[in-house]
Amino acid sequence: MSEKKTEKVIIIGSGPAAHTAAIYAARAELEPLLFEGFMAGGVAAGGQLTTTTEVENYPGFPDGIDGPTLMDQMRAQSVKHGTRIKTETVSKIDLSCRPFAVTADSGEYVAQTVIVATGATAKKLEFPGVEEYWQKGISACAVCDGALPIFRNKPLVVIGGGDSACEESTYLAKFATTVHLLHRRDELRASKAMQKRVFDNEKVKVHWDTVAVEVLGEKTVTGVKIKNLKTGEQSLIEAGGLFFAIGHVPNTAFLDGQLETDETGYVITKPDSTVTNVPGVFACGDVKDHVYRQAVTAAGSGCMAALEAERFLADGE
Amino acid sequence: MSEKKTEKVIIIGSGPAAHTAAIYAARAELEPLLFEGFMAGGVAAGGQLTTTTEVENYPGFPDGIDGPTLMDQMRAQSVKHGTRIKTETVSKIDLSCRPFAVTADSGEYVAQTVIVATGATAKKLEFPGVEEYWQKGISACAVCDGALPIFRNKPLVVIGGGDSACEESTYLAKFATTVHLLHRRDELRASKAMQKRVFDNEKVKVHWDTVAVEVLGEKTVTGVKIKNLKTGEQSLIEAGGLFFAIGHVPNTAFLDGQLETDETGYVITKPDSTVTNVPGVFACGDVKDHVYRQAVTAAGSGCMAALEAERFLADGE
Repeated sequence: MSEKKTEKVIIIGSGPAAHTAAIYAARAELEPLLFEGFMAGGVAAGGQLTTTTEVENYPGFPDGIDGPTLMDQMRAQSVKHGTRIKTETVSKIDLSCRPFAVTADSGEYVAQTVIVATGATAKKLEFPGVEEYWQKGISACAVCDGALPIFRNKPLVVIGGGDSACEESTYLAKFATTVHLLHRRDELRASKAMQKRVFDNEKVKVHWDTVAVEVLGEKTVTGVKIKNLKTGEQSLIEAGGLFFAIGHVPNTAFLDGQLETDETGYVITKPDSTVTNVPGVFACGDVKDHVYRQAVTAAGSGCMAALEAERFLADGE
Repeated sequence: MSEKKTEKVIIIGSGPAAHTAAIYAARAELEPLLFEGFMAGGVAAGGQLTTTTEVENYPGFPDGIDGPTLMDQMRAQSVKHGTRIKTETVSKIDLSCRPFAVTADSGEYVAQTVIVATGATAKKLEFPGVEEYWQKGISACAVCDGALPIFRNKPLVVIGGGDSACEESTYLAKFATTVHLLHRRDELRASKAMQKRVFDNEKVKVHWDTVAVEVLGEKTVTGVKIKNLKTGEQSLIEAGGLFFAIGHVPNTAFLDGQLETDETGYVITKPDSTVTNVPGVFACGDVKDHVYRQAVTAAGSGCMAALEAERFLADGE
């Protein structure tokens, strides 16, 4: 009925997972069509790395590489090997039919397999100074950014109260003079083990019932104004950095419940694979990973997704 | 009792998994000590990539990068972040004591955590021409090398009879004019599904009861002399490439059975992690992966191992 070309594989996403999947799919002659989105998930094509400055831990670049450049190079590589890229956001997908239907800005596309690599978006709070100093001393990933020179031997502020906040606080304590953990309640939501790490660490100071109200800075962050919610008292913490550790939102809304996810919305995949509950649909990168969330782990799972899509197609032929 | 310094983490290996683990461990201030080996597993430090020429599919390098250069850069990066590297092979490890004991050429070392990233070695057969044309038209990884220009639009030869041989044959059929699959028996060992892929593919020709006896070439491979084991008859196949698909041997002998492995010797890890059956010991890269076996998947799992070692140490403090 349809006169549309049936694609072998459509890839949705624009970060390391998506482009690694594209590189492998293209080299396997699957002629991938990739939707990189247009400000999808609130960030430019390229994903969370485009909001980073220097990336020191992506293996292969001993002198570091800045995030946008790394993504430009991955994108160039997937294009070079034959990936067709559309700068459109996928708004809807229908996994109940075969081939699958994918709706983007310019219309509907159909594909035998779909690789979901739409990532996750770090939550941040909005108060004065956040926008101005974002990535100039404000970050949402301690493991990615904590070891950068601008954060070393300075007091740092972390906002959050869950496992991530505790883990990131103790991680940052390795580099910081002091870590100020701000939590809006009077007890942490984190597991007992994680709480213990925080309480046992002399360099981490917990500020209960406390929120940040303003970020101060010059070229980069110099301090965070805080407010005690019980007393209403405001004070200033001198700090070289502010880290949001209040979670991420996986970009899965467009799936409309058609893939199995956990309660937070992360796509569930079979162990040690990218296979979802729908045969022919694969998920890779941060959209299915709330544990490691690194550029190189995302890239690795993108490779896995392409190889699995290739196998799926070969078996179906 | 011991006056030895207890290391926080010892990493054993020298490929993408080992160095990515080292980069992450070093950045987390774990001061990793890495044993890169001295011709361990039959290859130079750097792992299987050092036996490759151009790597087109490692994301971040749109123009490709040759294997040894990529490994040099990863090694430089792990050194830059503080990894101490010893060019010694680990001969023995004792996981029954805490801290763990690691025996290398220069003596015994002790560590709170160990990351095993010793890789796997591709099996190859030895007959005239193999050594001469190794990586000049001979490869042990179709997915890594099959799409390279030197293999395109030429007849290719694959040796093997298992799932990998079938998968690699059909993969190579995308690029080759014909794929000649040589198998020494009169039936394939591969699963029925994989056999079907081969039999259904017009471009793959199976040569039963057949072995290769010589590789011919000029600058690169030009042909493979084969012999029918039943008739004794020899003939020449014109071919631009020869692929061994007869399996890999994971480099786990030094573990002496102290980590749980599968029947082939691959280290077993908990799903979606690098955690082994011994708490504090992590495995990453090809030593635990016989499915994907790519530089980028190995690197991704190396990152996971370092983050897990870091968590293990933080919990134990």
